[in-house]
Amino acid sequence: MSASVDAVLAHADADLAGSRDRLFDLLRIPSISTQPEYKGECVKAAEWVRDQLSGMGFEASVRPTAGHPVVVAHHPGPAGYKGPHVLFYGHYDVQPPDPLELWNSPPFEPQLIDGPRGKRFVARGAVDDKGQAMMFIEALRAWHTAGGCIPARLTLLIEGEEEVGSKNLEPFLIANKAELSAADVALISDTNMWNVETPAVTTMLRGMVYAELTLKAAKRDLHSGLYGGAALNPINALTRILGQLHDENGRIQLPGFYDRVKPISNAQRAQWDALGFDEAAFLRDIGLTAPSGERGYSALERLWARPTADINGIWGGYIGEGSKTVIAAHASAKVSFRLVPGQEPDEVVAQFQQFVQDRLPPGATVEFADHARAPGIAVNTDTPWIKATLDALTEEYGKQAVLMGCGGSIPVVTSLRKVLDLDSVLMGFGLDDDQIHSPNEKFEQACFHHGIRSHIRLLAKLAGG
Amino acid sequence: MSASVDAVLAHADADLAGSRDRLFDLLRIPSISTQPEYKGECVKAAEWVRDQLSGMGFEASVRPTAGHPVVVAHHPGPAGYKGPHVLFYGHYDVQPPDPLELWNSPPFEPQLIDGPRGKRFVARGAVDDKGQAMMFIEALRAWHTAGGCIPARLTLLIEGEEEVGSKNLEPFLIANKAELSAADVALISDTNMWNVETPAVTTMLRGMVYAELTLKAAKRDLHSGLYGGAALNPINALTRILGQLHDENGRIQLPGFYDRVKPISNAQRAQWDALGFDEAAFLRDIGLTAPSGERGYSALERLWARPTADINGIWGGYIGEGSKTVIAAHASAKVSFRLVPGQEPDEVVAQFQQFVQDRLPPGATVEFADHARAPGIAVNTDTPWIKATLDALTEEYGKQAVLMGCGGSIPVVTSLRKVLDLDSVLMGFGLDDDQIHSPNEKFEQACFHHGIRSHIRLLAKLAGG
Repeated sequence: MSASVDAVLAHADADLAGSRDRLFDLLRIPSISTQPEYKGECVKAAEWVRDQLSGMGFEASVRPTAGHPVVVAHHPGPAGYKGPHVLFYGHYDVQPPDPLELWNSPPFEPQLIDGPRGKRFVARGAVDDKGQAMMFIEALRAWHTAGGCIPARLTLLIEGEEEVGSKNLEPFLIANKAELSAADVALISDTNMWNVETPAVTTMLRGMVYAELTLKAAKRDLHSGLYGGAALNPINALTRILGQLHDENGRIQLPGFYDRVKPISNAQRAQWDALGFDEAAFLRDIGLTAPSGERGYSALERLWARPTADINGIWGGYIGEGSKTVIAAHASAKVSFRLVPGQEPDEVVAQFQQFVQDRLPPGATVEFADHARAPGIAVNTDTPWIKATLDALTEEYGKQAVLMGCGGSIPVVTSLRKVLDLDSVLMGFGLDDDQIHSPNEKFEQACFHHGIRSHIRLLAKLAGG
Repeated sequence: MSASVDAVLAHADADLAGSRDRLFDLLRIPSISTQPEYKGECVKAAEWVRDQLSGMGFEASVRPTAGHPVVVAHHPGPAGYKGPHVLFYGHYDVQPPDPLELWNSPPFEPQLIDGPRGKRFVARGAVDDKGQAMMFIEALRAWHTAGGCIPARLTLLIEGEEEVGSKNLEPFLIANKAELSAADVALISDTNMWNVETPAVTTMLRGMVYAELTLKAAKRDLHSGLYGGAALNPINALTRILGQLHDENGRIQLPGFYDRVKPISNAQRAQWDALGFDEAAFLRDIGLTAPSGERGYSALERLWARPTADINGIWGGYIGEGSKTVIAAHASAKVSFRLVPGQEPDEVVAQFQQFVQDRLPPGATVEFADHARAPGIAVNTDTPWIKATLDALTEEYGKQAVLMGCGGSIPVVTSLRKVLDLDSVLMGFGLDDDQIHSPNEKFEQACFHHGIRSHIRLLAKLAGG
């Protein structure tokens, strides 16, 4: 099949502008999953993806869930295909774009601009995950157009709730297990490269617990002069509680939080040390001068293999211009914990609630909400799929691909293992400075282009294997 | 003059509905001083007040400041008047009405409704301070109409920035010292009664420092998975700092904060104890079950004679629906300190800034803004003005008026002393449950009515003295 791979790669090169235009069409749809008013836009994005796949001969449909729909598409591959059945996972939903005022261009009007590494795409979702999912779809298009076939038996699963914890995906997998469990391996493109020259496969992912809490005190807002000194201030109480989340060494203070956290192996540590991570440059890039986090661990260990606690949002009282002498009736925060393999999300939720209850002042009450619970993941690296992926990347870049960790969470990896008994391969093309979840999210055109080409190569290898 | 006082009181009784209607006209003007978009409404309120006074023969004008204007009005009193020159101070500005959704009626559409103590007025500013200022103006109107004269030499000073710290008032007093310093005593109606049956003169007022701070970390928002564990989270840092404002006994931890705080005298404590304050009922009224604040002091001491620290607002990161896995670039809070007589506002500002700087994690920066600085006040109680006021109140209510403290701040008392060398008399008619600065602010019609009548009596006593 190698002659044909070259023709398909050549086609992808020639049609790069077309691939980009199609990605831009998808980026123009503000499919923000967390905000109910964008529900219709999520449906529109799903239908757009479905139509792309139908046009290449897939049996594709937009399937309802209790939340935003899932796109499912199947193709049997070439006649007489004997290779593995590959399930590709991606997501069409995006994070909210706020704070809007920090964007240099409207987040849903994709821009092609010049950057230090050539052209780049700027839009919400440029890399996370519309850009990465579209690399696979464009690889399929190149195969379909220039290779004369879809080269492997494929199932695509493109969901719309990754940015809100994928809570309806697992029920969907369970309900459609008969249809989906024929796959042999899952392929996911939602992670990063090691750096712009060095491709990578991600084999460790942190999990996440994302909680929200509201502390309530008096039944109404109070004047801070007339009540201050006698009435409980829920913002004072909230900062007092959350201010104790870490000790002075950056260790998280939930009782039992580290009980299931295991140190990484010496081999793993040696491999990560060999990557030569430049922490100072990493921090300088985001405007920071000093490291943060848990003392006694290397930066990569803190990012990939140690759990964290971050307050993602906090609000209460008067937050307008000027001053208001008010003691608020309630105060709230969103708090997330990144978990490492071994930690149980349900246990961490209970530990956090207990931590707050233990510190609640008399007269206050607390309410909790739950936005995500997903365990950390360690991918089995001893599989033919990982080997094929490393080979495809190494050929494409002319440089050895590396194995790395990722501090983020991709809960679907757990669900695919649990419900469909599938190993996942995480081949991603994002860069650390892509500003995902931030204003001016971008994707390097070179990464997008290499990503399409790497998927073309990987499909050939998997099909031939 | 006593026959004439009875006639004036009778007129005030007969015209109560008219007085209320005029107050409602003023309450309909949303003169919110802290929000720039209401600048025109502040001017409108000032002009409305000026017109009321011009109509009674005052030489009244709306005078510009660097912020909202001040209404100044003068009247020489009856021909041959020999008594003291009284300066009345009030304010026409109000607090923002938010949270709007908790109001039972629109905040700037005043309502006359039935409550457990008879009719009440509901609107933003009903008691603070439009309602209280209008008691004095309606007392003047009754004198003017039924008494045939304005009974004393008077100056009225009705400002529009009390709710934002009165920062342009002192420069105004200095610039107009020649015009204003002829007064002998200041009269202010912006405080509370002891309870609905017991009139009071307030002789201790807490001061205030109101600061705002913004902690800055990375130069942009970050993904909490990709950066969590390595990048400083400014919300974590802010809660950690502000969570240390108090120790476990409710004592404020700024270095040197209590150095100038003096214990109250035993006589003062005995007098306050004799008031029989029911703390449990006070708290129950606002939905709280347990006291808060500094341990080892009675509730009235904590409210009137001990300093406090309250976070009045806090915000940072993602505060919309659902979840966003972001590490914010910055986080902010508004923090106010109530001060007691002796504490120096400038020192407290410096102590707070030092407290924050001392706890700032490496790589973070902090910016401070300043919304108010006013010292606490202890009024001289050994004056003929206090005696006349207690007598007027005791006659009106048929019950001995008491001396009390107030936890709130009225910065003008300091300015009047400093610039114009004036003692202030604080005779107020608010109640603890008036919900000032909160949704559904109200004023009891009985308090408004007694307030008009008490001012009629007090004017007679001062003029005759």
